[in-house]
Amino acid sequence: MSGEDAPAQQQNAEEQKQQQQQQEETKTPAESPKTESKPDPPPTSASTEAAADTPAPAAEKAPEEDTFSYRALVLTGYGGYDKVKLQVKKGKPALKSGEVMVRVKMCVLNFADLMARQGLYDRLPSPPVTPGMECSGIIEAVAEDVTDRKVGDKVLVLNRSGMWQDVVVVATTHTFLMPEGMSFEEAAALSVNYITAYLMLFDFGHLRPNQSVLIHMAAGGVGIAATQLCKTVNDVTVFGTASASKHEVISQGGVTHPIDYRTRDYVEEIRKISPKGLDIVLDPLGGSDTHKGYNLLKPMGKLISYGAANMLAGQKKNLFAVAKTWYQQFSVHTLSLIQGNRSVCGFHMGYLDSETELIAQAMAAVMDLYRQGKIKPRIDSTYHLEQVGDAMRRMQERSNIGKIILTTEPMKEEEKKEEAKKDEEKKKDDKKKDDRKKEEKKKDDAKKEEKKEEKKDDAKKEEKEEVKKDDKKAEEKKEEAKKEEN
Amino acid sequence: MSGEDAPAQQQNAEEQKQQQQQQEETKTPAESPKTESKPDPPPTSASTEAAADTPAPAAEKAPEEDTFSYRALVLTGYGGYDKVKLQVKKGKPALKSGEVMVRVKMCVLNFADLMARQGLYDRLPSPPVTPGMECSGIIEAVAEDVTDRKVGDKVLVLNRSGMWQDVVVVATTHTFLMPEGMSFEEAAALSVNYITAYLMLFDFGHLRPNQSVLIHMAAGGVGIAATQLCKTVNDVTVFGTASASKHEVISQGGVTHPIDYRTRDYVEEIRKISPKGLDIVLDPLGGSDTHKGYNLLKPMGKLISYGAANMLAGQKKNLFAVAKTWYQQFSVHTLSLIQGNRSVCGFHMGYLDSETELIAQAMAAVMDLYRQGKIKPRIDSTYHLEQVGDAMRRMQERSNIGKIILTTEPMKEEEKKEEAKKDEEKKKDDKKKDDRKKEEKKKDDAKKEEKKEEKKDDAKKEEKEEVKKDDKKAEEKKEEAKKEEN
Repeated sequence: MSGEDAPAQQQNAEEQKQQQQQQEETKTPAESPKTESKPDPPPTSASTEAAADTPAPAAEKAPEEDTFSYRALVLTGYGGYDKVKLQVKKGKPALKSGEVMVRVKMCVLNFADLMARQGLYDRLPSPPVTPGMECSGIIEAVAEDVTDRKVGDKVLVLNRSGMWQDVVVVATTHTFLMPEGMSFEEAAALSVNYITAYLMLFDFGHLRPNQSVLIHMAAGGVGIAATQLCKTVNDVTVFGTASASKHEVISQGGVTHPIDYRTRDYVEEIRKISPKGLDIVLDPLGGSDTHKGYNLLKPMGKLISYGAANMLAGQKKNLFAVAKTWYQQFSVHTLSLIQGNRSVCGFHMGYLDSETELIAQAMAAVMDLYRQGKIKPRIDSTYHLEQVGDAMRRMQERSNIGKIILTTEPMKEEEKKEEAKKDEEKKKDDKKKDDRKKEEKKKDDAKKEEKKEEKKDDAKKEEKEEVKKDDKKAEEKKEEAKKEEN
Repeated sequence: MSGEDAPAQQQNAEEQKQQQQQQEETKTPAESPKTESKPDPPPTSASTEAAADTPAPAAEKAPEEDTFSYRALVLTGYGGYDKVKLQVKKGKPALKSGEVMVRVKMCVLNFADLMARQGLYDRLPSPPVTPGMECSGIIEAVAEDVTDRKVGDKVLVLNRSGMWQDVVVVATTHTFLMPEGMSFEEAAALSVNYITAYLMLFDFGHLRPNQSVLIHMAAGGVGIAATQLCKTVNDVTVFGTASASKHEVISQGGVTHPIDYRTRDYVEEIRKISPKGLDIVLDPLGGSDTHKGYNLLKPMGKLISYGAANMLAGQKKNLFAVAKTWYQQFSVHTLSLIQGNRSVCGFHMGYLDSETELIAQAMAAVMDLYRQGKIKPRIDSTYHLEQVGDAMRRMQERSNIGKIILTTEPMKEEEKKEEAKKDEEKKKDDKKKDDRKKEEKKKDDAKKEEKKEEKKDDAKKEEKEEVKKDDKKAEEKKEEAKKEEN
């Protein structure tokens, strides 16, 4: 569907989405960031904006607590890459019962973080807020009543948000001890992707030997995790979509049939190899791809929807892509499910944050597989916190194969200078791109106007012809009447 | 919702259903019964109507084949219990490659047979046709190329239709050897219910220890099978709905919390015991119960819809019940599934008849459990083929606990006489019931008319008041205008 023929219904869908978002925002005041009411330490230029996940400073300040500071990435408002800013926070966080403080080594990007920056992910509290669902690091302090964790423990942390900073404070139930030999990069990259893939394939999907699975974005974080998990079961056929340049890597990783979705119709390609269809479809795309996935299912097949990546079409919120994906979002009737013996599931870890037992069980299973050497997170690239914009751009443009990591290790001075130069160039590039887009839009609008005019002319012509036909019919009738009279 | 306020939309839904049925009927000519074009043996009064599943008579008739006859229950048209008639067929069926002939001992009733008689089940070919999805018996003949079955083998048979007769001819892939010690009643009752319950709970449901399951119609065939299968997994909590008189039996069978759906709100009862909700809901009812089931799911919970028993509200098709169930039929959006981490599945064995491997695997698992003594079909009652009307009535009125069986053993003469007397009485009873209903309907209609009149009066009153208000406003405006002038 091109932009030219966007029907009115889509625009309505878009409006509804906006309205719903507004309602959701106003409905959930409990989720809005808690701002500290007591006086802050003297603000610096970088810490004037309060971050949502800022741990509360200790009530009585000892000298060490006064000098304690750490850096945090803060989403300051919805929009492009520059909306995530690196800020310095001051004051040592106080620990509540059952909590630990972790000195973060690595944190990672997930697709939900990109959605969140555009205001498309309702599980992130409103800005200003620190994004990030997972990190790895070393425990630096524990609350008095904590017995199952100690200072110096290496842990990975899973949380609804707030992991993109030097120091995090969380409940121990959100921390998991790192197995021997696991790197901090791997630890940071393990939880969201592997638990997501594990619960989808083995709980909802009930994957068994000889079955077939479609994995979209097979070179992404969940894609690689899912492929590795499929290989833990005998004779599973994996169809994986990715651009051609990534095929060699994903084939080596376990994808049986890589499909270049940019040049091929993946439905046709799959039907050629598996005419009866598939047992499991993992769908992170939403919109029309969900419909395609559903139609590819065998009897007893399961479609598992876990995102709407089709909504992301550029750095800033693309209302048309959002509306289109929203409008085409899949909805199914139980009668259709019964007649097809099918299952449709929805999954998102962001809505499971209170299910500690479920997560702990899945994590234990994933850790076991790691220890057995059956799974291993693939790291695509590592960026400094200062480079979060570049990191997000790489993910947005689907350039990565595997996980994109943010390290809390500060950037060296010479690196910073180089970065500044690059930034200048990128901004110029972005401006050029924007200008080009604007010009293209103008041309498009002009074309549309022309088409409208043409259509109007056509309509007028048709009208005239109709009138002529009517005249003709009337004459015919007259003649018939005459004949009858005769 | 009472009959009085049935909205226009429901009537539209009903019309749509009818239209769809018509389209389906015209779309699938391949599924319509094959009538033999060659001359039949001299017709008797009972065999004038051709049955769809009549096996083709042998091409060259030997004397034995001329005298070969058997009885078949035939659905002669959609409607009440009397639409299923016992007929005598003549001519020995010929066997095609891969087929066997089975002398039937027992066959059973399923809910789909009741739906089919009312024209509500699209997997049964159009009448005249022999219903019945399963039976048990002894192999009487095998085609030349059949090596895995021999004459004398005791088997149970699973087929799309045609099992309610003395003799059936099917492909060997539809027959399964009966384990040692299994009765013909048990064998006939095993396949549809236990395979349905097995695939729902263990494939779609992925049932595990400590989970909770809701089983509607817990005293029915699938209900009892599902309860027994739940008990093969440690510490599964089973909520079962059934009328109070059946609670003792289903509790003994394994239901942890029996709920009388006629006097209690089952949602409330379940929430009291499991405030967080359920892991699995098995839903054979459809309509508003599917919505309730969905809302009872925990994160990672599965709703499995496998019927629309709510459509059945009496002996004959109840258009209001059909329309209401259809109109309230559940439909779900992937976004809702994602936010709830939920799964919605549809299951019906009638649409799995070509999936021989899948069925064979499930059957093998079920047979294993039978041999281990972990499952055992519960027989409610046994009827002669001649009494099929009574059997259907018992199921329709939900009086059964377990499976209703039809035996092919002919009725004795004195039994037949008694049956004839009973029939007379039943017909009188039915007539009385019909008369009562008609009278009630008249009263209802009268009441509705009264209400309409009342509403009209109300509307008039409101209209008058509106007019008054308008007048008042106009006056107020005049006064304001005057004031301004002043």
